[in-house]
Amino acid sequence: MTFSLTILGSSSALPTSERTVTAHVLNVHERFFLIDCGEGTQMQLRRYRIRFAKIHNIFISHLHGDHFYGLFGLISSLNLMGRKVPLNIYGPPGLDKYLDLHFSASTVQLDYPLVFNSLDMEKAAKVYEDDKLMVESFPLDHKIECCGFIFREKVGERRIKKEAVKELSPGIKDILEIKRGGDFTDRDGKHWKNEELTDPPRSTRSYAYCSDTRYNEAILPFIKNVDLLYHEATYMDEMRQRALKTGHSTAGEAGKIAASADAGILVIGHFSSRYKKLEPLLNEARLQFPDTVLAEDGLEIDIQLTPEG
Amino acid sequence: MTFSLTILGSSSALPTSERTVTAHVLNVHERFFLIDCGEGTQMQLRRYRIRFAKIHNIFISHLHGDHFYGLFGLISSLNLMGRKVPLNIYGPPGLDKYLDLHFSASTVQLDYPLVFNSLDMEKAAKVYEDDKLMVESFPLDHKIECCGFIFREKVGERRIKKEAVKELSPGIKDILEIKRGGDFTDRDGKHWKNEELTDPPRSTRSYAYCSDTRYNEAILPFIKNVDLLYHEATYMDEMRQRALKTGHSTAGEAGKIAASADAGILVIGHFSSRYKKLEPLLNEARLQFPDTVLAEDGLEIDIQLTPEG
Repeated sequence: MTFSLTILGSSSALPTSERTVTAHVLNVHERFFLIDCGEGTQMQLRRYRIRFAKIHNIFISHLHGDHFYGLFGLISSLNLMGRKVPLNIYGPPGLDKYLDLHFSASTVQLDYPLVFNSLDMEKAAKVYEDDKLMVESFPLDHKIECCGFIFREKVGERRIKKEAVKELSPGIKDILEIKRGGDFTDRDGKHWKNEELTDPPRSTRSYAYCSDTRYNEAILPFIKNVDLLYHEATYMDEMRQRALKTGHSTAGEAGKIAASADAGILVIGHFSSRYKKLEPLLNEARLQFPDTVLAEDGLEIDIQLTPEG
Repeated sequence: MTFSLTILGSSSALPTSERTVTAHVLNVHERFFLIDCGEGTQMQLRRYRIRFAKIHNIFISHLHGDHFYGLFGLISSLNLMGRKVPLNIYGPPGLDKYLDLHFSASTVQLDYPLVFNSLDMEKAAKVYEDDKLMVESFPLDHKIECCGFIFREKVGERRIKKEAVKELSPGIKDILEIKRGGDFTDRDGKHWKNEELTDPPRSTRSYAYCSDTRYNEAILPFIKNVDLLYHEATYMDEMRQRALKTGHSTAGEAGKIAASADAGILVIGHFSSRYKKLEPLLNEARLQFPDTVLAEDGLEIDIQLTPEG
């Protein structure tokens, strides 16, 4: 029941010798979701031993090169590796034409379906859903249209109290019904309320990805109480004017958003290449929100399940 | 008077955790020439501390992604770094439209001129010339149109024999004339033949880049006697049929070409990702041509001047 995030790249537009441009991988129960795909993502996937074949869904926040120039190489490599199953891409309108042009110009014939899903860049919308996970996008405040994403594990079934049910020996159909919240009548006709037989479902986990954005409290409703919040922190507070102008945030602002959102953990990243040492950014964010960590290439953050009330 | 090659990437189409896709940098007297530009080239340039600003000329051999998908990121990064001077790209016809489409689709406005020079893919042709260097392209034998490049240092001036000239004390104009091969008449009217006053110019150095290609002796006239020969060696001899089918060479074939060309040193590269260890490829090439080395990311080969005749 894994729910863990791996940072593949933590630099802003200019990569450094230690920091690659942006890409994250979220592992939800061994399903791997790639979020943004800067140049070199396929090399980083190899470096951190994440199997390409396990990726079926890629989310692209916006069309600045440091967030998607790695798609061409990754898509080509998957083809060379013999992929046959579809690859889903969720991205800004226009990315599909862009990819078409690209592959036709470089005479690449894909042997697997590339399925493009256009994002609504103007309002929050459901983007993806399976039996374990729901993904929504929400608008950010950048120089061009840009989306954040929130990944929410779905509420599971109620957990049967083994001791309480032992004597009643319900059938399989009954058990399924009880797990879904139903009451139960035993062989003697006695009625049992669901709460007598079950504990609530385990807590669910969530991850919010706030790609390039200015500090903007309009995103708070979407990220409220998130377990793990990634928020960009391109600059330090002393460069706030530049952050505003270029559509980015400071480390202090990232901390402030995390505090207002009552997040569990804050990861900051997308650092300007001018910062050789990142501790000052970390300290600035921690003044606002102590549970902050630095995104570093290869960092893995595992969010554990916690039993609930 | 440097003439040295740095290998930025040595893998074939699928990069591995140790080997990036193809890119080479040739340093000729501190002018840097980038040859092919696979994904991740800008990161490799940083890793090996080659200053972006020193690159003014990029040569692209063909339009397979592993040889040019790094252009988009590199060109964008140069823009972010404030480049104003032109960047020359020498590549297959169509690459210019491709780059235009790319930057217009990703809304990148370049603040410096990108000057495209279309290669003749069908016959050998001069591509570039300055006061120190001449570059020619020649056709290779790949699945799509593909060029090799040969970089030849130009013949320098004759070298004045200090001892012989000391007593004659020629003026500056006379010295320039003598260096160019002229004779000299001294104050006493005595005539000196140039050979009495000078030694021949230093030898010149050359580097041939044979990108993706089948074994083909038609390239021999272009690479004859080259000091440093790079030739791809995607497979071992046992996979010769696959090499033929995919338009590539084996390590043994690369060695054979180097021997027939009387090359100085052979560097083999573009290794298939199936080879975890490269010694068997090296040994196979060395059976044909002992002075073979393996291209490895970061390898630098310095070609020294040797006095001549």
